[in-house]
Amino acid sequence: MAYITINHNHFKHNLDLIRQHLKIISPNKNIEVAAVLKDNAYGHGLEIMSNLAMENNIKSVFVKNYNEALKIAHKFDSVTFFYGIAPEKSNNIYSTIHGFDDFEKIEKTIGDMSGLGVELKVNVGMNRNGIEIKDLRKHIEIILKNDMRLIGILSHNGYGDEFGEEFNIEIERFEEVKYKVRQLSNELGFTLPRFHSLNSSCTLRSIKCDDDLVRIGIALYGYLTNEVPIKLAKSLKPILKLYANRISTKLLDIGEKIGYGGISVMKNKRVVSTYDIGYGDGMYRLNGNKQLLLPNGEEILPRTSMDCFSCYGDTNEICVMEDAAYIAKVFDTVPYEVLTRLSPFIPRKIV
Amino acid sequence: MAYITINHNHFKHNLDLIRQHLKIISPNKNIEVAAVLKDNAYGHGLEIMSNLAMENNIKSVFVKNYNEALKIAHKFDSVTFFYGIAPEKSNNIYSTIHGFDDFEKIEKTIGDMSGLGVELKVNVGMNRNGIEIKDLRKHIEIILKNDMRLIGILSHNGYGDEFGEEFNIEIERFEEVKYKVRQLSNELGFTLPRFHSLNSSCTLRSIKCDDDLVRIGIALYGYLTNEVPIKLAKSLKPILKLYANRISTKLLDIGEKIGYGGISVMKNKRVVSTYDIGYGDGMYRLNGNKQLLLPNGEEILPRTSMDCFSCYGDTNEICVMEDAAYIAKVFDTVPYEVLTRLSPFIPRKIV
Repeated sequence: MAYITINHNHFKHNLDLIRQHLKIISPNKNIEVAAVLKDNAYGHGLEIMSNLAMENNIKSVFVKNYNEALKIAHKFDSVTFFYGIAPEKSNNIYSTIHGFDDFEKIEKTIGDMSGLGVELKVNVGMNRNGIEIKDLRKHIEIILKNDMRLIGILSHNGYGDEFGEEFNIEIERFEEVKYKVRQLSNELGFTLPRFHSLNSSCTLRSIKCDDDLVRIGIALYGYLTNEVPIKLAKSLKPILKLYANRISTKLLDIGEKIGYGGISVMKNKRVVSTYDIGYGDGMYRLNGNKQLLLPNGEEILPRTSMDCFSCYGDTNEICVMEDAAYIAKVFDTVPYEVLTRLSPFIPRKIV
Repeated sequence: MAYITINHNHFKHNLDLIRQHLKIISPNKNIEVAAVLKDNAYGHGLEIMSNLAMENNIKSVFVKNYNEALKIAHKFDSVTFFYGIAPEKSNNIYSTIHGFDDFEKIEKTIGDMSGLGVELKVNVGMNRNGIEIKDLRKHIEIILKNDMRLIGILSHNGYGDEFGEEFNIEIERFEEVKYKVRQLSNELGFTLPRFHSLNSSCTLRSIKCDDDLVRIGIALYGYLTNEVPIKLAKSLKPILKLYANRISTKLLDIGEKIGYGGISVMKNKRVVSTYDIGYGDGMYRLNGNKQLLLPNGEEILPRTSMDCFSCYGDTNEICVMEDAAYIAKVFDTVPYEVLTRLSPFIPRKIV
């Protein structure tokens, strides 16, 4: 049966690299590294990755929705989910507020909002989610009035990978957010929440930082998709490998065809085997318009099936993916998509 | 929260269409329609689709592996899994044999093979999986010698969608398989197993059939990818729709940018909303090189994120997918891949 391995040494290596970088850019402040475990931990497996995060002393994590949060809340001090509404209150599961609507939805769902921990998302220029800076006071007032716990103020810089001024403009806007929240804290008398705005690339390209926490996703998994040069990007080590097992082996003659529509035609008499990974497991489908090589250099013979692919050779077990960036390049996408596609039903194990 | 609907009327419609077709092409034989529920029921959800299949009087189903089989075995007379080895014996879960190796693997895993139900896969020209016709006798002898139950003999025609002679050549080869197995049955004295070789397109393009069962996957879900004309293809109705819910709404000015890298730039002052479906949920990522429209005609604004996308408007709920074939065309693939990618974590409901 096909399986995925997660390399715990590579994970620790990536985490140490980020922690060391933070010590250099912020020598006087102990900035917390939080792990982003959303979308089944970027396809790596929420169960296995939350264990690994916990073992590596990660205390705060971020996930997609309440369902993900609930599965791992017992492992961390704080679990914040980005989207949707919590159906009930929890001590350490925090909702993300994206606008006034959310208060209404929460009230409708759980009634009394007192004690509910929330983080307030502020739009600093990506124009996707979150409240506007001008609405900070109103949102915080609603939070205070309803006795909710304001755990954090966050933004998301959408220009971490790119050249251009936008990256710095968003950094500056978040500085403005922090300034305003500190003012409001003095005026309204609430405890300062934690501030966080930097993802992997933003963290690793920054040369200074005074946020309380950074949210690291893709870099922990060993990738970065920076267009702007980021020195540490090359030192990251992918933690995931995907392996398939042999289903069948045949000795095929010149001219014989393989797979759907028979578009792979034998040029020589050779041994061909079929392995138990297909696009139903999250590998991209090959229809003959693109060429994809296995880590051993052999071509995956198109067309691939939902449950299997064919290639030359007859080894019992074969590595199908060790570098999601290579597959991403072939399919004009990013490693994030290649990884999150991986079926959660493939067994995972730590190596 | 985003969700998927499964239309039970469309499912019944598709199934009735296939059952009626079988009555026409095989008036003297009651050919059984088996449902292919592998890969989380082609992404539709194994739980919900197995219930629907059961309610519609489907008795035999086919899945990917033992894990899938185990989840639904109580709902059907027979559940055959195509790949891998059963870790234990079961009355109605059947393994698929692809070659001599498999007997060794089964023996190693469960020891005594007596009583184990197996189906024998025969390669009729796709050259992917299954035993060769010349090896039929040897495999059946091993099955009999070990007191295993020979439940079925199957093949898979890899040319159901295509023009050309290969389709008929594979049909002929399976006729040869059936003839040989009948001979062996007489000679060796075993009960004739069930014969099956036709998938959706092969079934619907056939004008005669004397198999015992057909294995219907994609047509039950409402699609077919035939290049060769198949009249009934156009009558199939997709059963799945994907809906997303609004996270945030903004009124953006001319020149303002949206999303990662800010590649979508406002040409007019307009209302833009973000919805809770992204490539982490199995939708294809849009990076600006391709255009994808929602069923309501609005463009999904690139780049899309792991958990969300933006578009013009501010409706609370939006349909993201109602025709996987359209999305498949944009991304140079087949509806199968679009559907199987859908995250199993998205809630499903029958409508």
